[in-house]
Amino acid sequence: MADNSWSRRHILSLEDFTPSDYQTVLQTAASFREVLSRRTKKVPALQGQVITNLFFEPSTRTRSSFELAAKRLSADILNFSPGSSSLKKGETILDTAKTYLAMGTNLMVIRHQQAGVPTIIAQEMDRINSGVGILNAGDGQHAHPSQALLDLFTMCATLDGAAPHIDHLQGKKIVIVGDILHSRVARSNIWSLTACGAEVHLVAPPTLLPKHFLEAFKRPVKTGEKSPPLERRLYVHWQLEPALEDADFVMALRLQHERMSQHLLPSLRAYHRRFGITRERLQGCKPTVKIMHPGPTNRGVELTSDLMDDPELSLVPMQVTSGVATRMALLYLIGGVK
Amino acid sequence: MADNSWSRRHILSLEDFTPSDYQTVLQTAASFREVLSRRTKKVPALQGQVITNLFFEPSTRTRSSFELAAKRLSADILNFSPGSSSLKKGETILDTAKTYLAMGTNLMVIRHQQAGVPTIIAQEMDRINSGVGILNAGDGQHAHPSQALLDLFTMCATLDGAAPHIDHLQGKKIVIVGDILHSRVARSNIWSLTACGAEVHLVAPPTLLPKHFLEAFKRPVKTGEKSPPLERRLYVHWQLEPALEDADFVMALRLQHERMSQHLLPSLRAYHRRFGITRERLQGCKPTVKIMHPGPTNRGVELTSDLMDDPELSLVPMQVTSGVATRMALLYLIGGVK
Amino acid sequence: MADNSWSRRHILSLEDFTPSDYQTVLQTAASFREVLSRRTKKVPALQGQVITNLFFEPSTRTRSSFELAAKRLSADILNFSPGSSSLKKGETILDTAKTYLAMGTNLMVIRHQQAGVPTIIAQEMDRINSGVGILNAGDGQHAHPSQALLDLFTMCATLDGAAPHIDHLQGKKIVIVGDILHSRVARSNIWSLTACGAEVHLVAPPTLLPKHFLEAFKRPVKTGEKSPPLERRLYVHWQLEPALEDADFVMALRLQHERMSQHLLPSLRAYHRRFGITRERLQGCKPTVKIMHPGPTNRGVELTSDLMDDPELSLVPMQVTSGVATRMALLYLIGGVK
Repeated sequence: MADNSWSRRHILSLEDFTPSDYQTVLQTAASFREVLSRRTKKVPALQGQVITNLFFEPSTRTRSSFELAAKRLSADILNFSPGSSSLKKGETILDTAKTYLAMGTNLMVIRHQQAGVPTIIAQEMDRINSGVGILNAGDGQHAHPSQALLDLFTMCATLDGAAPHIDHLQGKKIVIVGDILHSRVARSNIWSLTACGAEVHLVAPPTLLPKHFLEAFKRPVKTGEKSPPLERRLYVHWQLEPALEDADFVMALRLQHERMSQHLLPSLRAYHRRFGITRERLQGCKPTVKIMHPGPTNRGVELTSDLMDDPELSLVPMQVTSGVATRMALLYLIGGVK
Repeated sequence: MADNSWSRRHILSLEDFTPSDYQTVLQTAASFREVLSRRTKKVPALQGQVITNLFFEPSTRTRSSFELAAKRLSADILNFSPGSSSLKKGETILDTAKTYLAMGTNLMVIRHQQAGVPTIIAQEMDRINSGVGILNAGDGQHAHPSQALLDLFTMCATLDGAAPHIDHLQGKKIVIVGDILHSRVARSNIWSLTACGAEVHLVAPPTLLPKHFLEAFKRPVKTGEKSPPLERRLYVHWQLEPALEDADFVMALRLQHERMSQHLLPSLRAYHRRFGITRERLQGCKPTVKIMHPGPTNRGVELTSDLMDDPELSLVPMQVTSGVATRMALLYLIGGVK
Repeated sequence: MADNSWSRRHILSLEDFTPSDYQTVLQTAASFREVLSRRTKKVPALQGQVITNLFFEPSTRTRSSFELAAKRLSADILNFSPGSSSLKKGETILDTAKTYLAMGTNLMVIRHQQAGVPTIIAQEMDRINSGVGILNAGDGQHAHPSQALLDLFTMCATLDGAAPHIDHLQGKKIVIVGDILHSRVARSNIWSLTACGAEVHLVAPPTLLPKHFLEAFKRPVKTGEKSPPLERRLYVHWQLEPALEDADFVMALRLQHERMSQHLLPSLRAYHRRFGITRERLQGCKPTVKIMHPGPTNRGVELTSDLMDDPELSLVPMQVTSGVATRMALLYLIGGVK
């Protein structure tokens, strides 16, 4: 499983990930998926190492997924909970991180409501030559790389269960529907999916997907060992039906209730009427189309309950399952960087 | 320790437990009690398996007991905490459970303030052939089977320390005093104790023990391999003294302060005067009488402080200790069902 | 590592610690520091034992430090969280402690906002011959022995990295600056540092260091095998500059914001102007002077940011690192008392 081509100490965003990076993650996750199917599901890969979960923004689902991944790798885990912490006593976030560093932390998994916090901590950790690796578990509306990577693994493993490979995504049409503007999940998925050669179609009302949105993705792609796509194939739609035509994967994003109070949406019902995924609307997609959602789902809003529960259509449980193997892969890869 | 006679994947209530089920639990708990007396207190029984504590209703005591039981069985543990969870974001309870299933959970320990939630989750887990076992750790006023089973173990181990057996309960008189109406502990104990041949006497003011209370327990008992008592020996008292006569065990229930604001009780002091267990009132009991309480105790309300602290009389610490061994037994038994 | 001279089952305060006790802690911590530098950082010393963290006063930093120490010793850990606990249901603190005892706890680490709580629990645990050891992790304004012991280790390891010894503290000048009156850290450090032969200088405005403060430390020192200093060398200052002259170590204490609302201080800025540690003010100290702080720090109040971040001057990260080794030593020592 050792991969000499991996040299990233931190995973903060997918902006500069190369196709080779993605493929390394897929292969490593696939080998951990195999470990998880055994009776003894543990490997001693990170024995004696300390992984600290710094979740400044509370989360049960993502924290549990990382916690289980860390346990499967035999690491020791410390959980920082902001509720009862030194932050309330005036300590800076950097000092909190340095305290956990001084205790012996090797890897930090960081979630924060403000974009950029994991990057700032990573820069400081490098500046002082700490040797600590940082994994961004979601920062504001910026990035959620482990989610996009587990989504990538889920899609590639759906296309080829035995040997998930990014090449299978070439030319596939992926539709992302929902609150694109405020979604770190969408942003990270746009970087990964376009870099792997998929065609990405974004769908939302204009309040959640303004015209200028694509600007951020127009910078030149950095080169890896494989030549990346010359131009990202990324499209914007303000109506659902035309976007869904011939789609291979439809990813619905979570709609946050506060978008209503911000007057960005009239009502959940109105949203569902125009952008909710229903069985009927899937008619125009490829016959093999699959539905995805990062969770937690508002049933009957982003998609109907019967789609969510249809094992032929919904990849939602597989996304969660892939999450553990993918996060094991990420912790393993950055944990091995000297 | 393997028991081929056990076939329950879930433990949701004790209504349909057979004497043979109870005896299997007792024997398994006794063997784990022996494990806990060794220097190395762990067994690899559930190594690699994931036990998730879904405690929608917060609890420190019961969660700690289950957590220690799971650690002793070498399982990996995930703790779901409702405070910072997806539930606040509109996710359904079933979707929360399915998320933990998809992560790789093998057993779920569920507590919820609403009766029936663990049953609904168990039904869904069976419907989708998940193979997951559910253990009800307390649901509303419905059931708290692990508490009643640890109480059963405590009584039988008091009657015969070396080989706890349900037969020793035959004809024993057990008095349950307190807020019967709202108590899931009382309900589960009534099923187990009457099924094992004990005589159960319920005592409370009429507001906490209405006339119709017994109706729920009048359904025919399902038959197991041993013939169950033809009629449950279950009695209601509205006065304490006559009930205590010749009692073998007196179990006081926790009185919740909100019963006062609901006008079901005049005051804690008035309650203690009529229904509080005191040394004087125990005069009429058997000389070997023992006191029990599921905890946490309001000292001076349900029972006097000196009784609580009298190691000759109080089984309260033994109940807590038996809790770990009994919960190990339950997790082990349902974890072994294919 | 076994030390036959250690006989304390509890560590509640340092008042009666002998020089030999301190030296045993230093030696044991030094050997665990060596363990922590290995690739496999665990020892099986407390395998099968249960350590319960009873943190009635919430704390993330200290709890994490104890948790990691316990994991490194291979103990099982239970965490009691007051937020969702039986305390809210009217249970007494002693009953909470006894519940965890009955579950199988061997060692309890206790923090409480009221002085004396760990002592009361320890007395009860001894009275009932529980065999449980209690470690005070901070009680009100009374004591925080593990902090003072990690401070002692940090100083002695700074003076001689290879073989930390209390003799190196003989005649050293240590200045403690800040909210002395309300600080359990200051109290515990005064006992340890004066007992080891250091000269301790306390500095604060009179509202935070009243004249009578020294009274508490004037009782005769109990004798150990080495003759302790006949008189504690302990001095009070109400001005910073004269105190700092020729200082070897300057320990700044955390200033709590509520001291302002209590009218004990005009403002943070005024405090910093008179008592804040700055590079300029360190001119009068020994050239080898080091800065310490128990954390969390209010940068720019107790000390300037640049001092905090100067690895030549600040021992703050080393204090945190020493904390894990020192707490391993304390748990190991009291865990070995029969």
